Amino acid sequence: VRADARANRQEILDAARPLYAERGRSVPMRTVAQSAGVGIATLYRHFPTPEDLLIGVLEDAFTLITRIGEEHLERWDADPARTWNGLVHALGSLDFGALAYSLGPDISGSPDIQRQLDGARNMALQTLHEALDLAVHADLLDPDVTAEQFFAGLAAITRPLPDPVLEALPQQRTWLLDTYVRGMRPTA
Amino acid sequence: VRADARANRQEILDAARPLYAERGRSVPMRTVAQSAGVGIATLYRHFPTPEDLLIGVLEDAFTLITRIGEEHLERWDADPARTWNGLVHALGSLDFGALAYSLGPDISGSPDIQRQLDGARNMALQTLHEALDLAVHADLLDPDVTAEQFFAGLAAITRPLPDPVLEALPQQRTWLLDTYVRGMRPTA
Repeated sequence: VRADARANRQEILDAARPLYAERGRSVPMRTVAQSAGVGIATLYRHFPTPEDLLIGVLEDAFTLITRIGEEHLERWDADPARTWNGLVHALGSLDFGALAYSLGPDISGSPDIQRQLDGARNMALQTLHEALDLAVHADLLDPDVTAEQFFAGLAAITRPLPDPVLEALPQQRTWLLDTYVRGMRPTA
Repeated sequence: VRADARANRQEILDAARPLYAERGRSVPMRTVAQSAGVGIATLYRHFPTPEDLLIGVLEDAFTLITRIGEEHLERWDADPARTWNGLVHALGSLDFGALAYSLGPDISGSPDIQRQLDGARNMALQTLHEALDLAVHADLLDPDVTAEQFFAGLAAITRPLPDPVLEALPQQRTWLLDTYVRGMRPTA
């Protein structure tokens, strides 16, 4: 039963993340439950209030970042340039850009939410700091680039593109991420 | 009187552009008139319908792009690298990123609007093409980068940043534009 509950919780978070990314926190709990394929009672059991769900989604996003960061740190030495590029693309493929823009105002206006996210956020930032340090040492990253700057830039360039742009330029996000990685190299 | 009318028209467009960029075309005509400091009758004399105003704003934005492009083309030879960088930053300082995202769906859904903008858009694209060609020849730009790709990327990275990001990283847009310029250089 416990594994089932965990699975349900993760299904809810996986369904809620893109919905929040697209529409902000105004998405009704009912819509999240439907999209996750669980009953509304199950949703409320895991997340008694919309704020609990918001915190859950953001905590989960930070956990994803940490996991992706750690996976890349583990295989760093084999090929730093390839791993650094892969890390930026993997982070870019999350909905984090959209999430940051649609939920940012809610978070920055609530010290209480911020405090509850501190643990997960600090772990994500620490993992990113480690990756950025390695990238600097491998001469792949300008040492002046801060983790905050890097992350804000990543969020900006990975916000969803309008449908006509996506159709006309399907590779645009990949190209922008490649351009970003190249542009952050140390200047000669 | 004619110079006055022209001045009024431009004041309306200058006031409407940031409003449309921020809130899309749903901005009431009344709000635009107030922001421009003209009476509602003056607004309707210049732009009888909201669609006329929408077209006016976009036409004016393309004209701005053309003018900025031409100014930079004129002083290209003196210092290509500096001029190319200056052009990207000048284009980035327009509200075009926000405009493209807030009005894009309206435009792409209306062949009629698109047709009316053809002249101004083609002139802007032609000027950009010229600048991109010069940048390629000066070894400042990867020859594989298309004008569409360049422009969509510029729009993506110059969309407005959320206030907390702006406050924490006031130089973020400038840094992203510099990173963009560096990232588009020809690969060795």
